[in-house]
Amino acid sequence: MTQALNFKVTGSDLLQSYKNTRNHSQSICANLTDEDVQAQSMADASPLKWHLAHTTWAFETFILKPFVNDYRTFDDSYEYLFNSYYNAIGAQFPRPQRGLLTRPDRQTVNHYRNHVDHAMEKLFFEFAEIKPDIQKKLIPLIKLTINHEQQHQELMLTDLKHLFSFNPQFPVYSDIEQFEPCEKSEAIRFEAGQYSIGHQQEEFYFDNEGPQHQCYLQDYTIDSHLISNGDFLEFINDGGYQSPQYWLSEAWQKINQNSVSHPLYWKKIKGQWHEYTLNGLKPVMPRLPVKHVNFFEANAFANWRGKRLPTEQEWETAVRSQHPQLKQCFGQLWQWTSSSYSAYPGFKPLEGAVGEYNGKFMVNQYVLRGGSIATPANHIRPSYRNFFYPDASWQFSGIRLAESI
Amino acid sequence: MTQALNFKVTGSDLLQSYKNTRNHSQSICANLTDEDVQAQSMADASPLKWHLAHTTWAFETFILKPFVNDYRTFDDSYEYLFNSYYNAIGAQFPRPQRGLLTRPDRQTVNHYRNHVDHAMEKLFFEFAEIKPDIQKKLIPLIKLTINHEQQHQELMLTDLKHLFSFNPQFPVYSDIEQFEPCEKSEAIRFEAGQYSIGHQQEEFYFDNEGPQHQCYLQDYTIDSHLISNGDFLEFINDGGYQSPQYWLSEAWQKINQNSVSHPLYWKKIKGQWHEYTLNGLKPVMPRLPVKHVNFFEANAFANWRGKRLPTEQEWETAVRSQHPQLKQCFGQLWQWTSSSYSAYPGFKPLEGAVGEYNGKFMVNQYVLRGGSIATPANHIRPSYRNFFYPDASWQFSGIRLAESI
Amino acid sequence: MTQALNFKVTGSDLLQSYKNTRNHSQSICANLTDEDVQAQSMADASPLKWHLAHTTWAFETFILKPFVNDYRTFDDSYEYLFNSYYNAIGAQFPRPQRGLLTRPDRQTVNHYRNHVDHAMEKLFFEFAEIKPDIQKKLIPLIKLTINHEQQHQELMLTDLKHLFSFNPQFPVYSDIEQFEPCEKSEAIRFEAGQYSIGHQQEEFYFDNEGPQHQCYLQDYTIDSHLISNGDFLEFINDGGYQSPQYWLSEAWQKINQNSVSHPLYWKKIKGQWHEYTLNGLKPVMPRLPVKHVNFFEANAFANWRGKRLPTEQEWETAVRSQHPQLKQCFGQLWQWTSSSYSAYPGFKPLEGAVGEYNGKFMVNQYVLRGGSIATPANHIRPSYRNFFYPDASWQFSGIRLAESI
Amino acid sequence: MTQALNFKVTGSDLLQSYKNTRNHSQSICANLTDEDVQAQSMADASPLKWHLAHTTWAFETFILKPFVNDYRTFDDSYEYLFNSYYNAIGAQFPRPQRGLLTRPDRQTVNHYRNHVDHAMEKLFFEFAEIKPDIQKKLIPLIKLTINHEQQHQELMLTDLKHLFSFNPQFPVYSDIEQFEPCEKSEAIRFEAGQYSIGHQQEEFYFDNEGPQHQCYLQDYTIDSHLISNGDFLEFINDGGYQSPQYWLSEAWQKINQNSVSHPLYWKKIKGQWHEYTLNGLKPVMPRLPVKHVNFFEANAFANWRGKRLPTEQEWETAVRSQHPQLKQCFGQLWQWTSSSYSAYPGFKPLEGAVGEYNGKFMVNQYVLRGGSIATPANHIRPSYRNFFYPDASWQFSGIRLAESI
Repeated sequence: MTQALNFKVTGSDLLQSYKNTRNHSQSICANLTDEDVQAQSMADASPLKWHLAHTTWAFETFILKPFVNDYRTFDDSYEYLFNSYYNAIGAQFPRPQRGLLTRPDRQTVNHYRNHVDHAMEKLFFEFAEIKPDIQKKLIPLIKLTINHEQQHQELMLTDLKHLFSFNPQFPVYSDIEQFEPCEKSEAIRFEAGQYSIGHQQEEFYFDNEGPQHQCYLQDYTIDSHLISNGDFLEFINDGGYQSPQYWLSEAWQKINQNSVSHPLYWKKIKGQWHEYTLNGLKPVMPRLPVKHVNFFEANAFANWRGKRLPTEQEWETAVRSQHPQLKQCFGQLWQWTSSSYSAYPGFKPLEGAVGEYNGKFMVNQYVLRGGSIATPANHIRPSYRNFFYPDASWQFSGIRLAESI
Repeated sequence: MTQALNFKVTGSDLLQSYKNTRNHSQSICANLTDEDVQAQSMADASPLKWHLAHTTWAFETFILKPFVNDYRTFDDSYEYLFNSYYNAIGAQFPRPQRGLLTRPDRQTVNHYRNHVDHAMEKLFFEFAEIKPDIQKKLIPLIKLTINHEQQHQELMLTDLKHLFSFNPQFPVYSDIEQFEPCEKSEAIRFEAGQYSIGHQQEEFYFDNEGPQHQCYLQDYTIDSHLISNGDFLEFINDGGYQSPQYWLSEAWQKINQNSVSHPLYWKKIKGQWHEYTLNGLKPVMPRLPVKHVNFFEANAFANWRGKRLPTEQEWETAVRSQHPQLKQCFGQLWQWTSSSYSAYPGFKPLEGAVGEYNGKFMVNQYVLRGGSIATPANHIRPSYRNFFYPDASWQFSGIRLAESI
Repeated sequence: MTQALNFKVTGSDLLQSYKNTRNHSQSICANLTDEDVQAQSMADASPLKWHLAHTTWAFETFILKPFVNDYRTFDDSYEYLFNSYYNAIGAQFPRPQRGLLTRPDRQTVNHYRNHVDHAMEKLFFEFAEIKPDIQKKLIPLIKLTINHEQQHQELMLTDLKHLFSFNPQFPVYSDIEQFEPCEKSEAIRFEAGQYSIGHQQEEFYFDNEGPQHQCYLQDYTIDSHLISNGDFLEFINDGGYQSPQYWLSEAWQKINQNSVSHPLYWKKIKGQWHEYTLNGLKPVMPRLPVKHVNFFEANAFANWRGKRLPTEQEWETAVRSQHPQLKQCFGQLWQWTSSSYSAYPGFKPLEGAVGEYNGKFMVNQYVLRGGSIATPANHIRPSYRNFFYPDASWQFSGIRLAESI
Repeated sequence: MTQALNFKVTGSDLLQSYKNTRNHSQSICANLTDEDVQAQSMADASPLKWHLAHTTWAFETFILKPFVNDYRTFDDSYEYLFNSYYNAIGAQFPRPQRGLLTRPDRQTVNHYRNHVDHAMEKLFFEFAEIKPDIQKKLIPLIKLTINHEQQHQELMLTDLKHLFSFNPQFPVYSDIEQFEPCEKSEAIRFEAGQYSIGHQQEEFYFDNEGPQHQCYLQDYTIDSHLISNGDFLEFINDGGYQSPQYWLSEAWQKINQNSVSHPLYWKKIKGQWHEYTLNGLKPVMPRLPVKHVNFFEANAFANWRGKRLPTEQEWETAVRSQHPQLKQCFGQLWQWTSSSYSAYPGFKPLEGAVGEYNGKFMVNQYVLRGGSIATPANHIRPSYRNFFYPDASWQFSGIRLAESI
């Protein structure tokens, strides 16, 4: 079960939450052309049109089909076309080919969204009539599927940025990329001891955030602020990308194979560093936090500084302390931790197809914490565990350092 | 020089030819969505929007910029964005990423087309005022660029078919795929001797079709008809795809690596062979010519039959003979020959950037002759040399057999 | 520092340990042909001749060159040829090409070994004359380099097995593969609480085994015995390799891409499972422990059983408990844990080039514990952390299960 | 049939030819270590031990097994192990893994050679007793298999050179690489007309050298000498490798992908060009012919010079003319022609498994003529057609230019 049911939930609450989320997805695409929402820039990213359809598919597949007797599917072939990775549902249209699905077109996908919205809204209006034990099953699934769409909202922005970055005309999307400037970091100190980790029965959480459990931490400090572009430029100018001693062995191979020498969206133009942003090409601002660095780069930077990345337990303990100096924790940049993404002690995946949501990805990925400017605000919480491969740079990911003392 | 100038050409002739060609490109896209013209299904294929832009770029680059003093470019960045492979013009946007160029969108590309059309039409109206020696340079370049757009018109259809074939909904485009049925072939006999090969000063020809030259052929026969689906099914049913003795060594490796056991667009559904066509999924009709076979398959089929593919000289000699029994020569399917694409004796590429049009592709590709149902009718002639890699199947390509006697 | 110096060490002790280790490497190759020690079966494995040279290079590079003034190198080019991955020493001959170094031949490599042995033995004989502070530096480095050669002794056997497995004649090497039979497992219970993890000032340990530190474990059980071939056959026969629900997402992709359906060296011959062993091809014995399974397979098996792999802390705590029922812990098979290989809290790599020994591999690999039949006996201890990528199967690796309670 | 039988052949002739050839293979390996003959440097090259075994396999497979009733195979598993590419014989041990076959070791392969030699010699001694119609079948097969071993003798040297070139110690093998110096070329002129191409009933020829047939050539010239290192240096120094206009499109992609800027074995050391030879590393000598250039490089060089490569028909016609100025034709370097390797008119492959010898490779390869310093002298003739992929550089291949006039 993804969350406790000690919160009373009505159909009207669900409806409000549902509509807000669904509208937000549409608003993300409002200024985009049909071509913009069609293209797929790499296998790891998806077309925005696909995100619009897949999030709709999730409501149809996990809520409407199993729980609404008279629900009529919009198009039977969508079960296959818009299944992302749920083997329990059936085969999946190949991920790297999502950009080839020009049909259904955007208009048809919008019809699909309306069709499912209509059925969901009917469900919410009649929610009080549903038997309590079914309600008890439905509520967490509906919340899960709403949160699922919120996750895709962030991916829509990061996938769009990745796509646009290939265009030499540097398309302008919006001024969404607003960051608090960094200041000189203080090392905030935490004492060794037992700490509680994981969700605390918040209104919603994913299965991977629990069970809540004790862990023992040694003495450590964590930096009050994120690493800035200026800090990272020092690393570059000090030959950081050419110095094997700072890099994990696998990282060193990759940056050499791919000739990497700067963060993903940086470009040097006439001797001046610029970066592609969703607001077009901009000069790199030294006081803003460095972003779109991957785990390998974050780790190398930490080594260069003689520090390290925090574990996810250290990060969570620190932010829960509500230390007054601890800044830029939430909604700025996802912050790489040194923790490989794995099950908490006693973790059990959800029952059924939604059990494939998290658990099967628990290998070779690294945990990020905190949420970014692209994360819906009510989707951010201290126990939230995001995870990506260590060479992934296209998320809004940054660096906060820690140290053992 | 691509063609002789013993035809008197006026601005009005050129205008008519230009407008017909430009309109045809637009009509190909008329029923397609913005998404359809955006997607790119493989590196060898291009988005239809790109074809629309690139063919326009060719007029801008080879005609307007060098010959029209007051021409103002539509967008300077297009020189790079829509350059296909002309190193003499400059760097090229990477081919496999053409599908990522969501901007300029289709509407902007249409504005670009109108902008160039306007300038070209002005040129045609004022053509009589141009100095004769400039006219002499311009006319072949304009014809070349018109023929260039015609080549892309065929690719627009084959690239679209390739794209749509990935869609499990089997999109319907049009009923353009109409083929004459095959009949039992007669082996038409030709005597050994010297024959003349290459263009014969037709109104237009590409540089690779000349110079006209003598060649010596041995006795041979060529089949009066194309190989049918029914013939090819016999090959399949006889285990042709599982029998190494029919296949070139390189072909045998490839079909095994990729588990190929039938022509590109064939699918067996409930025991019945179907094929994806631009008119949707259809049963394979035994009397229609087999299509979308590559050189390797054509060659294996010929070996299985105890025959061989004709050389391009044999094919050209046969069709020039106007033998009354020799059918399905033009405008049905491109017919694979056994000839590696290479320079005719004395071949010289054109001067300037257009010299990159043909010559630099003369390695590892095989010549096809005859034109297909996707080829504009006035773009077909006996000396026309099309060429593709031996593993390419996405063209409308078929099989006609020959034999040494 | 790799180990504490509260053990008094004399030159004669070191000499004995050195000679035993060096002789053992030679004895591993005694029955092999020059061809056997030359070939390299994959980039991750090395020729045995290379192992013989590289372990010698380590003594030359870390001991003789820096500490013996009048040492004369055997061949200057070996610094580059036999450097494995030490960037601080300099560039490295490319790993995948080690099998192409036919020169120096085996005889010359043996001369190289003798040359270095002679210099090392001289050092040991004169050890008492070395200044105490230099001795203090030297002793841990010598022990480290001896242990380094022991690590390679295990790799020599696993790399040899991998090489021989490609040979359809199934070469016989020796009867070294002797395993204790499995019995029905009991689930041994451990209580939640704080436990001490890491080395305990044993005579030798690697830097990655420390610092010793506290960790908090929840209640858990661990199985008394390893998983047997018979157990694993049940998984296979139950369709385990065809059931996505047991597999990590990345694992599922890999086993499908590579058509994996059984442990690495298993072959079905006339309906009967056999496995390639260093003693030739043998029937799979149901009571013996299953081996050469990778992390993905171990994890899938655990899921199928409704259990999980232990963390490395759980494994270490269990074996330190000296529970009388806990069997097959050491010297049988390396046992996969669920722990991603990472730094212990407060970990600092060694100073200098040997600092590259462990730390830079701390990403995307998983920890194995316990040692195998191929591990030198005095190289096994409770805190020892071996690590391999989750798709690596060529080590002597097996499965022990755990459970949260 | 590979050759006419208008030469009377006795068992004693065959024996002599057989023994000479077999001894030569052994002599090639005489100075090599067991390690040298084991390693395989790429999939296209084979270990020398494999060549020794495979050439023996050919006598066993094509002569002894089918024609000698009481022949007992040396080891049944060799049928599979040493089959190169004959599907009619059966499956083949994977080519890229030949270097992993450490067993049979070299000594055993030598026993295998002796075993087959003994049986072959017995056959020759009793040859007169064989029925004439069997003799008639046997003689061409024996000659073919002797010539087959001669082909492998050249490959043994080129594969060895390729292997040794990876070794930074630049192993010395022998002074076999002796070339006649180039002189200033004259353009030798040939008139348009019909010429006869193909074998002329020489004592031996491969099936691909026939049938003899007429072809029509246009006027052309061919250079009297090969291109020298000095000539090629001018091309390099003129930026030839950085100038797309000289390169085929496919070539330009490859040299950029692989950062190629000089012939295969050249290395610039302290500003001075050196090349690896079988006699160790040597300075590049300007007057010696440039070698180890591939088709792409030869073609680019020709374009830079404003000339072209000859067709194979032009080359053959020229050397058959015995023009007194035409030098360095035979036994120096294989000379690239512009001709794609294809069947002569009326070509029929041999019956049986030996029919796979040549025909199935007739795609995407280019013909070389003339033989090299590594080719056995009695294996060279005007009609001989060697063929390699256009990116292959490891043969002793050079450049002779031609021109259309």
